[in-house]
Amino acid sequence: MKLATIKDGTRDGQLAVVSQDMKTAALADGIAGTLQRALDDWSFHAPQLQDLYDALNQGKARHAFDFDTYQCMSPLPRAYQWADGSSYVNHVELVRKARNADMPATFWTDPLMYQGGSDDFLGPTDDALFGSEDWGIDFEAEVAVIVEDVPMGRTASQAGEQIRLLMLVNDWSLRNLVPAELAKGFGFFQSKPATAFSPVAVTPDELGDAWHDGKLHLPIECFWNGRQVGKAQAGEDMVFNFPQLIAHMAKTRRVRTGSIVGSGTVSNKDASRGYSCIAEVRALEMIADGKASTPFMKFGDRIRIEMMDKAGKSVFGAIEQEVGASEV
Amino acid sequence: MKLATIKDGTRDGQLAVVSQDMKTAALADGIAGTLQRALDDWSFHAPQLQDLYDALNQGKARHAFDFDTYQCMSPLPRAYQWADGSSYVNHVELVRKARNADMPATFWTDPLMYQGGSDDFLGPTDDALFGSEDWGIDFEAEVAVIVEDVPMGRTASQAGEQIRLLMLVNDWSLRNLVPAELAKGFGFFQSKPATAFSPVAVTPDELGDAWHDGKLHLPIECFWNGRQVGKAQAGEDMVFNFPQLIAHMAKTRRVRTGSIVGSGTVSNKDASRGYSCIAEVRALEMIADGKASTPFMKFGDRIRIEMMDKAGKSVFGAIEQEVGASEV
Repeated sequence: MKLATIKDGTRDGQLAVVSQDMKTAALADGIAGTLQRALDDWSFHAPQLQDLYDALNQGKARHAFDFDTYQCMSPLPRAYQWADGSSYVNHVELVRKARNADMPATFWTDPLMYQGGSDDFLGPTDDALFGSEDWGIDFEAEVAVIVEDVPMGRTASQAGEQIRLLMLVNDWSLRNLVPAELAKGFGFFQSKPATAFSPVAVTPDELGDAWHDGKLHLPIECFWNGRQVGKAQAGEDMVFNFPQLIAHMAKTRRVRTGSIVGSGTVSNKDASRGYSCIAEVRALEMIADGKASTPFMKFGDRIRIEMMDKAGKSVFGAIEQEVGASEV
Repeated sequence: MKLATIKDGTRDGQLAVVSQDMKTAALADGIAGTLQRALDDWSFHAPQLQDLYDALNQGKARHAFDFDTYQCMSPLPRAYQWADGSSYVNHVELVRKARNADMPATFWTDPLMYQGGSDDFLGPTDDALFGSEDWGIDFEAEVAVIVEDVPMGRTASQAGEQIRLLMLVNDWSLRNLVPAELAKGFGFFQSKPATAFSPVAVTPDELGDAWHDGKLHLPIECFWNGRQVGKAQAGEDMVFNFPQLIAHMAKTRRVRTGSIVGSGTVSNKDASRGYSCIAEVRALEMIADGKASTPFMKFGDRIRIEMMDKAGKSVFGAIEQEVGASEV
C-alpha cells in the first residue's frame, strides 16, 4: 500500500492512504491519526490500512479526495531517528580520489553511517531555505526505509524483516561546511540541514520483483532546473544493503519503530548514468580536468527526484523543491 | 516546576507533575498526556501544569501519589532530537593530550557537537545492557536542556529564551569503539548507545540564582559502585553556554520543540573535583604515568549521578543505573 501525510497545520499532519495510481487518497483518521502512531502498533493498524487501500483502489472508499503532492508533508514530518548510510562506496571513493585522499579498505566491509537530525523534515515540495549560496548547496538523491522495532544485536540475516516502508530522500547537504566539520571529528551537523522525503511511502509488497536482496532495483532520476542529470540504478553498486545497514545500527542499541534508514547518495560505477548529487560530478571533473566546473545550486534553482517502475509509473511521487534564501 | 514521565507500558509513558520536595506526584493526564505533547503547545499547557504543581506543593492535588524514581522513564522517553555539545573544552584538551594529539585552537571558539540517537532513551534507573565489557563501557555525567522551537539563524543572545526544561544526562559511551568510528569521519554511532536522563526535568525558574549566564551553577556528583569519584562544578569551565550551543544548532536549520541539547561531560580544570567520566581519569593517568590504570566499567557495576542544590536537596533526582550483559 501507499501512505502519505497531509498538511493540516499540525506538527505531524494527518495520515492518508493513497491509491496505487496516486490519483486519489483517503484520510486514515478512523485507523491512526499519524504515521508514527500507525508504526507504534503496526501489526494492529496495517491490516486496517490495507483494507482502506483496497477499497480506495476499487473506487469504494468514502470521502476519497484528489491526491496532490503539494498538500503533502514528509510521510514522517518528524521522526525519532534518521540514520543515513553511505552504501554506494563508489561515490565515496570518487570524492576522496578527487581530493587525493586514499580510501581505507575497511570502507568496503564496514558501513559508513551518520546520525542525522530528525526533528524537522521538509515536505516533498517545500522550498529549501538557506542563509547563503556560499554554503555549497547540493541535493542528494537516496532511497530510505522505515523500520519497526529492531532488538539490539540483530544480524543482517534477520534485520530485513523489520522493514515496513520505503521512500525517496533528498538529503540536502552544504558542501562548503563539510570539510571543517569533518576535521573536528564529530561528524556532520551544520552541513546537513533539514532533509526532505517523497510524498508517498510504500510497503515492500508494492514494489514486486524490484525489491529483492534488501535493495530497490529501480533507477532514481534527478532533474536539475528541468534538465535530467541522473538516472542511477539504486540496485546496482549498493555495497551494503538495507538489512546490513540496520544490523550496523543495532550493534550496540535497540532501534525503535519509525526509525528511518538511508542508503546514501545513489551512485553507479557507470558514469553514463549521470549523478545523484553535484559533489559527484564535481569529483569526476576534478579527476579529469584538475578542477570542478559545475557550480553548486543557486537561489531559485529547482531539483526534482523521482523513481519510475518498469511500467513507467511514479512509485513514490516526485520530490520537487526550490532553493531559496532564508529570511534571517 | 518539576515534571516526570511515569511508566505505563506505552512508548511515551504518562506525564506527571512532581512536588518540589519530590515526595509526591500527580498525573497531568487532564492537561497533556505526554511531555512531548505538552512541549508541542507549551504556552497553552505550561500554565495549567504550573497550577497543578502549586496545588501539589500545597497538598491539595487530587489523586496525588508517592513519587518513586524507579517508576520513571526519561522525561522524554524518545525525542525528535538529541544534540550533544562538548562545552568543557578542558576535557577535550586532556583526552587529546593523553594521546599526544594537539587540539586545534578553534575548539575554544567553535563548539564541538554530535547528533545523538534519540529513538530509545533509558529510564533513570534502567539497567544499561551491552554486548561486551571489551567495548570500554563508560558513563558521562552532563547537564541538558529541552528547547521549544528555535528559528533558523537565531543568535546566542536570543536562543536562551527558548529553554524550557533542564535535566541531567548519563551519556553512555563505548570508548573502545570510538577510535575506529572517529577515523571514518562520520562521527559517533555504535560508540554512543542509548542515553539516560534524570527522573525529573525542571523549569529554569525552579533553579533560582543557580541558573544564570546560560549555565547551571551547581556541582554534578558521580558515585561509581558507591564511591564518590566526581563533584565537578557545572557552571565552571563551560566554554560554550547553552544559548551558544543552541545557536550553533540553528545556524543552518530550524530546531523544533522537544529537542534536547547536552553540555558534554562536565569537567573542571581543578582536578581535585574528580571526574564525570572514566575517560578523563584515564587521560590524567596517562599524562602522569604513561599508562591508564583505572579500568572501564564491568557488568554489575553501578553508577549514580545527582545534583544537589545549595540547601543539599536533590534537584533532578538521581540517575542510578547498573551495567549488565545484553541477552544477544
